[in-house]
Amino acid sequence: MNTNAANENRTPVTVLGLGPMGQALAGAFLKAGHPTTVWNRTAGKADALVAQGAALAGTVVDAVAASPLVIVCVLDYNAANAILAPAADALKGRTLVNLTADSPERAREMAAWAAARGIDYLDGAIMTPTPTIGQPTAVLLYSGPEAVYEANQPALASLGGTPAYLGTDPGRAAAYDVALLDIYWTAMSGYMHALALARAEHIAAKDLAAYARGIVGIMPDIMTELAQQVDDGRYPGDKSNILSAAASMEHIIHVAQARGIDAGVLSAAHTVARRAIDAGQGTDGFSLLAELFGKPSA
Amino acid sequence: MNTNAANENRTPVTVLGLGPMGQALAGAFLKAGHPTTVWNRTAGKADALVAQGAALAGTVVDAVAASPLVIVCVLDYNAANAILAPAADALKGRTLVNLTADSPERAREMAAWAAARGIDYLDGAIMTPTPTIGQPTAVLLYSGPEAVYEANQPALASLGGTPAYLGTDPGRAAAYDVALLDIYWTAMSGYMHALALARAEHIAAKDLAAYARGIVGIMPDIMTELAQQVDDGRYPGDKSNILSAAASMEHIIHVAQARGIDAGVLSAAHTVARRAIDAGQGTDGFSLLAELFGKPSA
Repeated sequence: MNTNAANENRTPVTVLGLGPMGQALAGAFLKAGHPTTVWNRTAGKADALVAQGAALAGTVVDAVAASPLVIVCVLDYNAANAILAPAADALKGRTLVNLTADSPERAREMAAWAAARGIDYLDGAIMTPTPTIGQPTAVLLYSGPEAVYEANQPALASLGGTPAYLGTDPGRAAAYDVALLDIYWTAMSGYMHALALARAEHIAAKDLAAYARGIVGIMPDIMTELAQQVDDGRYPGDKSNILSAAASMEHIIHVAQARGIDAGVLSAAHTVARRAIDAGQGTDGFSLLAELFGKPSA
Repeated sequence: MNTNAANENRTPVTVLGLGPMGQALAGAFLKAGHPTTVWNRTAGKADALVAQGAALAGTVVDAVAASPLVIVCVLDYNAANAILAPAADALKGRTLVNLTADSPERAREMAAWAAARGIDYLDGAIMTPTPTIGQPTAVLLYSGPEAVYEANQPALASLGGTPAYLGTDPGRAAAYDVALLDIYWTAMSGYMHALALARAEHIAAKDLAAYARGIVGIMPDIMTELAQQVDDGRYPGDKSNILSAAASMEHIIHVAQARGIDAGVLSAAHTVARRAIDAGQGTDGFSLLAELFGKPSA
């Protein structure tokens, strides 16, 4: 290990939770020269990290006591709470960065819990898969007190990419996380559905995928344009409107149903578009749906 | 117009239907030097094209008689049938390329109609918006007899991009069209839903859009990987599985519902994931859903 010199300048870091993501986080801290302490309920998961120079703590309290910066990344906040509650005293005066994914509400609850115990707290969300951690392509979002973020930004930068600070509301990183995962899972469900349609038409998935990549490729610019409309609260339908979108959806739904393919996902979207049409807003642009999803029918 | 020399070598083309896409198609043929005849039920839509050198035909029969290659691009096949039926005799011995979007079944029906009347027929689908027509970024798909495609490929190349020939089944271009639009509308519905979630969390749409672009950016490679799994009929769950996908979806659904946001779209996808879990396939990969959408529950 050629990290001794660097170690003197690097914040010691503790990583609690060594699932695939926790291991990636600890590995990135190690590679960047941070003295790294790890803990996991099942100690065996630390073997590879210990071989790379990590210190394995026997208890959460020992792990927390080893570093001024403590990262927790486990399945959900129930798991995080169970691990952290007994270590509250040890965490006092340290920084806790929670990279566990959960809801904005629970992030705010944990921030309040930490504040009441004298623990500096940042809530974070990891938007890219484990192989990106420590690489320029990583995307990690943080929210919480700005001073806490600024003080820990150099260490967090070891996780790769450009760490993004979203503001003081500790729920904000989780809110971005939920909204972005919403896009991901909905889009991937649509892709799976399209592969089911393709299969019914004897089209190989790889043949469709070549064009599916192109369809996804035109989306970013459209997304930016529609976001502007939503922020402006104006939904121009001059280029395409809800009527034409709904007609296209109906067409897809009919083809799916004729092939015996479940059409529930697109039907649910079509129902919202239909509400706009029934309300006389069919000539508005598709971006109006961002409003309508937030106003479910009675 | 500096196109007289070129015109001598370019196939005369007729475009029936001058909606925004029909106008873009005729404009691209004109720019590439094809003698171009246009017709629309409302003649006024031809004004700009006539100013660029297009000939305006007074009837569909006259329009068809002007060119060996006839393009039709209207709202749907009902509209296409209504326009073409009276011109069947005039179309005999010519090539009809139908760029109207509809279902694979209706494409096959129209191909049969054309074949019975001695009309060479290609069915096509336009996968990119009007501004791309005539540009390298255009994506147009064609299916039907290979010899007909080969003979007309040079003229069709004037519409831009790399024309793609998908095979002899005349329904194949429409099948790709439906599957790709399925991805598009489902993904864009998910995006609108995410903007509704963001709005409830006081996140500006443009702020979310910056990261939404990144989420969409990681999808193409994942799509290619999952397509391979679907073609292989093997759904490895080692990196992520249906259990974790369903948990993530439930989490998003709960956050949406707590904010009074319609969660029907993702709930429909979650129902299919749930079926996999109930059937003991929760540790399979998400790509199994391409099979499950095609096997709706009773």
